[in-house]
Amino acid sequence: MTKKHTIILQPSGRRGEVEEGKSIRAAARDLGVEIESICAENGTCGKCLILVEEGRFEKYNITSKRENLTPLTPVEADYFKRRPKLLQDKGWEVGQVRLSCQCQARGDVLINVPEESRGNKQIVRKSATQREIEIKPSIRKYLVMMTPPNLERPIADWERLAKGLETSMGLVRAGEENLPRWSDFTIDYACLRTLSSTVREAQWKVTVSVWQDKEVVQVQAGYHEDSYGAAVDIGSTTVALYLCNLRTGEILAAESEMNPQIVYGEDVMSRIQYTIENPDGLEKLHKAIIGTLNKLLKQAVKTANLSLRAQAKQSGEEEESAPRTSSPQGNDIKLEDVLEMVLVGNSTMHHLLLNLYPKHLGLAPFVPTIHKSVDVKARELGLHINPSANIHVLPTIASFVGADTSAMLVAEEPHKQDENWLLIDIGTNAELVLGNRHRLLCTSTPTGPALEGAHVEYGMRAAPGAMERIEIDEKTLEPRYKVIGVEGWHNDHENFKGQVKGICGSAIIDGVSELFRAGIVDSRGKFKTKLESNRLRQGPSGWEYVIAWADETSIGRDIPMTQQDVRQIQLAKAALFVAARTLLKRANLQSPDKIILAGGFGSYIDKEKAMLIGMIPDCELDKVYAVGNAAGDGARIALLNLEKRNEIDSVARKVERFELPTDPEFQNQFMLATSLPHMSEAFEHIAHLIPNREKDPMAKKFVK
Amino acid sequence: MTKKHTIILQPSGRRGEVEEGKSIRAAARDLGVEIESICAENGTCGKCLILVEEGRFEKYNITSKRENLTPLTPVEADYFKRRPKLLQDKGWEVGQVRLSCQCQARGDVLINVPEESRGNKQIVRKSATQREIEIKPSIRKYLVMMTPPNLERPIADWERLAKGLETSMGLVRAGEENLPRWSDFTIDYACLRTLSSTVREAQWKVTVSVWQDKEVVQVQAGYHEDSYGAAVDIGSTTVALYLCNLRTGEILAAESEMNPQIVYGEDVMSRIQYTIENPDGLEKLHKAIIGTLNKLLKQAVKTANLSLRAQAKQSGEEEESAPRTSSPQGNDIKLEDVLEMVLVGNSTMHHLLLNLYPKHLGLAPFVPTIHKSVDVKARELGLHINPSANIHVLPTIASFVGADTSAMLVAEEPHKQDENWLLIDIGTNAELVLGNRHRLLCTSTPTGPALEGAHVEYGMRAAPGAMERIEIDEKTLEPRYKVIGVEGWHNDHENFKGQVKGICGSAIIDGVSELFRAGIVDSRGKFKTKLESNRLRQGPSGWEYVIAWADETSIGRDIPMTQQDVRQIQLAKAALFVAARTLLKRANLQSPDKIILAGGFGSYIDKEKAMLIGMIPDCELDKVYAVGNAAGDGARIALLNLEKRNEIDSVARKVERFELPTDPEFQNQFMLATSLPHMSEAFEHIAHLIPNREKDPMAKKFVK
Repeated sequence: MTKKHTIILQPSGRRGEVEEGKSIRAAARDLGVEIESICAENGTCGKCLILVEEGRFEKYNITSKRENLTPLTPVEADYFKRRPKLLQDKGWEVGQVRLSCQCQARGDVLINVPEESRGNKQIVRKSATQREIEIKPSIRKYLVMMTPPNLERPIADWERLAKGLETSMGLVRAGEENLPRWSDFTIDYACLRTLSSTVREAQWKVTVSVWQDKEVVQVQAGYHEDSYGAAVDIGSTTVALYLCNLRTGEILAAESEMNPQIVYGEDVMSRIQYTIENPDGLEKLHKAIIGTLNKLLKQAVKTANLSLRAQAKQSGEEEESAPRTSSPQGNDIKLEDVLEMVLVGNSTMHHLLLNLYPKHLGLAPFVPTIHKSVDVKARELGLHINPSANIHVLPTIASFVGADTSAMLVAEEPHKQDENWLLIDIGTNAELVLGNRHRLLCTSTPTGPALEGAHVEYGMRAAPGAMERIEIDEKTLEPRYKVIGVEGWHNDHENFKGQVKGICGSAIIDGVSELFRAGIVDSRGKFKTKLESNRLRQGPSGWEYVIAWADETSIGRDIPMTQQDVRQIQLAKAALFVAARTLLKRANLQSPDKIILAGGFGSYIDKEKAMLIGMIPDCELDKVYAVGNAAGDGARIALLNLEKRNEIDSVARKVERFELPTDPEFQNQFMLATSLPHMSEAFEHIAHLIPNREKDPMAKKFVK
Repeated sequence: MTKKHTIILQPSGRRGEVEEGKSIRAAARDLGVEIESICAENGTCGKCLILVEEGRFEKYNITSKRENLTPLTPVEADYFKRRPKLLQDKGWEVGQVRLSCQCQARGDVLINVPEESRGNKQIVRKSATQREIEIKPSIRKYLVMMTPPNLERPIADWERLAKGLETSMGLVRAGEENLPRWSDFTIDYACLRTLSSTVREAQWKVTVSVWQDKEVVQVQAGYHEDSYGAAVDIGSTTVALYLCNLRTGEILAAESEMNPQIVYGEDVMSRIQYTIENPDGLEKLHKAIIGTLNKLLKQAVKTANLSLRAQAKQSGEEEESAPRTSSPQGNDIKLEDVLEMVLVGNSTMHHLLLNLYPKHLGLAPFVPTIHKSVDVKARELGLHINPSANIHVLPTIASFVGADTSAMLVAEEPHKQDENWLLIDIGTNAELVLGNRHRLLCTSTPTGPALEGAHVEYGMRAAPGAMERIEIDEKTLEPRYKVIGVEGWHNDHENFKGQVKGICGSAIIDGVSELFRAGIVDSRGKFKTKLESNRLRQGPSGWEYVIAWADETSIGRDIPMTQQDVRQIQLAKAALFVAARTLLKRANLQSPDKIILAGGFGSYIDKEKAMLIGMIPDCELDKVYAVGNAAGDGARIALLNLEKRNEIDSVARKVERFELPTDPEFQNQFMLATSLPHMSEAFEHIAHLIPNREKDPMAKKFVK
């Protein structure tokens, strides 16, 4: 009979009996503790490191010691010999640390599974509720040792590869049910084309990347552990791309560019119009966005490689003999290593990306070509990553509530709440979703690009040199501001000079709000022209208030906020407000339990000031969250967790859509909503900011 | 309680009780009798016609009459009104003939389901055993009435299409288990791209073509009933394409062309060599075959349309008002209506078609890149049919036993036999399979193109003007021959003139066999130069025998068979013979129970003559079958019956492969096998044909 020993696994505290002859990794799996492995238990990937804790553990009634594991194997010795820095950094001794795929129990042991060895990794992301994202990527890699062919068994390359893959997958994921058999695997045609050369160059030792446990999409010579993917949020104005490591979830690079389609029309309607009026319009807009995506991908790979090389250099000296680091360039990520992309964007961006005619998005009854998420090969879209890579585009909800909203839903998860949440994704077009686990309503409204810094005289993206905060002193009417890339307020610095270029979204809202609070503009948004301040003046386009004098800027000109800028913001915030009110009315709610503001500048927005100008409906201020680019986050979640994709499809299918009515009553409400802050909304929270609040009929009720 | 009536279905004789309110088509299905339908029971396709038999049927104890069905509906009246010719041709009266989806039982009825209305159609094809092919195509069409979108329910085009498709499929195939739900359907990206325009042009009435019950590959405005597919056999020398109706199995056109790769090398080895020596070699060979396939597809569609238009004209007058025949061109098959292709070819042709580097097919240990069948979209290969069409390439068995052999196996089915069959596919390269349901062995041998009419001085393809039979009188040494396209033997015609152009494969074998039987060449294949005949003479390349004088030909020159021609055939037949003997030895068999000769000229070959020259091993003559292009037939079967594709994949995986040895002993056997007929093989069957048989030591034993 086989001998059995007790094994305790920390930190989970799982315990059980293990038979001699079974690897610790296999034994742990039997106890429900997943330990990582990529190399099919060859002892080369080092993902399955464990630590033996030594001593007497009364609680478990065992004495654990190193000798209770089988002696160090040559494979392990070799592995650790090449990684002195790892041991030194962690303070581990060889013998105490082991490769769990290589050692077995010979006596009782208490094993510590360090964080990095645990299966089912999770990453933490910022959201209205802090949440962990479990990493379950669509791509998994396996090291496969192929049987060479011979005259007696002249089996084709693919069949030998598939059999080897079955074995490797079985070893790495033993115990899982329904692992595919070799004959179930398929290989993408583009990958098949180079198979015979690759496997021979590799001398039958290859790393195989498998998509969704079924389709082989990449075969690489030798051993590789990481796969890469990109999550992209295509805004009407800005395109943001995140290059991620699909195994660890780490963001390796974040890049953004203007959407090049902007030259064909600033808002979605004018781009749709362009495709209707020009026979080659769709083709042009489609090619423009594909070109930008290819540019961003190239940039992201470059950025990631620079930072990886820097890291490698830092920790590289001792590991020089390790096979991975034969040359720094040899480990560079290549575009062909990008094996998956998830894209989101409003419905028009979605259609233009997929080369679908957007005409009917813009004509009543306003329907997209497809709601369901789309999977298509990179080569079909002309994206210059691995041609076998899958491109996943999240589902659309309605003509003006697109895949970006689907992404926001998966990032914030209102469909899992009891409370009623109002989510507002602010861009050139704003999408709003209201509801909870029982019901979700959505609508959308055009807001213009002002909130993204466009169409504002000195507006710019949130980048170094942009003002991100503005305050105006009620008494002196003098401003102070913060600039991205500069510590503190500008007037903290003596002789602040030449460092500001323009105003980004969050400062624009600050600016309007402060102009109102300081009594420089009235509640209709009009400049008061009789005030004592040299900053208030007639500019080329009417009255304006100078925030930065020319010598403080890098552009050599005064930076004012103009009457025109204030009007833009009034129109945008009124649109948002009326849309939110309409949804609340539809849902028979007075106010939401929580408001989540998303969008490129969302995380920098001052909630109180947004409420002061009347951009959002009444809600407790500490229940208003600014979560940043939730659409981008949602894209990243869908990139890293395959199961979330089905969830999004099913949630998106259930959201109820409403078009905002176009009747005169509605228009009237909209005009009312342009006032600052306007009507009775949220006065409880902002009354202390209203100018002449002691005299204001609304404000005075709430002022303590 | 609902009333019930007895229903009897002929010719099956199925009977049962049917509730009032159920259509006859649905009732028949409940009794296990499938009646066709395409239009989702809209009463427009007319595929579900049935006949009511009137009278007293004692056997069943019922009285059947027209009035026992619900009265003719306006839909039926309209359908029959537009088809007076159909009624006249068949001698049917309206009321006697009904649309089974439209009528219900009100009393007992005996129903006759005519052949054309029966589901699960079958076509009969020629094979060693006459066999019916059940039609289960990969593409099925459904008429879908989409719900138009509106402002209250602005559902996307795809989702409304998918829901409509679920309904239509449910109606057409009600009762089948596991029919997909709407959310299970997918749509090919190329098809999605034009969806929004098509469904609007169609005003929401479309015909949807679904691949393998899951993927939408074509959406057409209005009602269409037929889908088309192509089966292709890519030979080293000849490419043959069959355009088929996927619903009826009918062959609409058969076209063939020379394989254009021939300019890069006549046999597979020299084409492989070309790809090794030239960096752009693979690309050139791949593009050449794709170009030819596109040419053949275009020709086939043209041929099919000419014949369909002729048919339509014949039967068209009375049906002019029917919606399908609004204009003859309107019903033309277009290349984009070709929705599926199945291709077969030897392993080299397979690799070149798929743009796979064939180098390792030609180098030891001789392995293909892939055995398993490949599915790839038409657009990926540059085939100009519907871009969403699937291209299915049958599995390869070994480096020199390709997808053409897989096709032959599915056509002839040795894997379902108790007897041991020997299958020989004769082309520039010959593949041989031996065995039965328990075990199948295969090998291959190069035979050169002589048996296909190439490399023979006046050789040509089997086309009008080619000699297909030759006989030589033993006494006078005068020949007679048959020409394709001319009735009877040439000497049946007085002054036979100007009608022959060359010699095709079957006549080449006849010729060599007859030259030997008449004593003009000896058993070593050498011309006897001392004979009394003006037909025997010294030609430019040595001795030759004139079969047709210049004035009998359309080329104005004598057509001889030369010493060189005889040598070519000797080498080819020796290769075949030795390969067959080697397989028999491996299988421990003396002789096969049945021999099946396949290949372009196979159906015309004279089995006795093939045996006389020693091309095939010993076997009862009436157990030798010539089945023609079995590879092409197999391709057609796989095109029409989806289930056969899995069967081929699984059979191909089990075939044992042998390379012919290259040792001197084997070479020696090969040289011996070049003699006519040679050794002791099959003398029992051919002794009566041996010259001077009374003196021949082998032949005299068998001569009666």
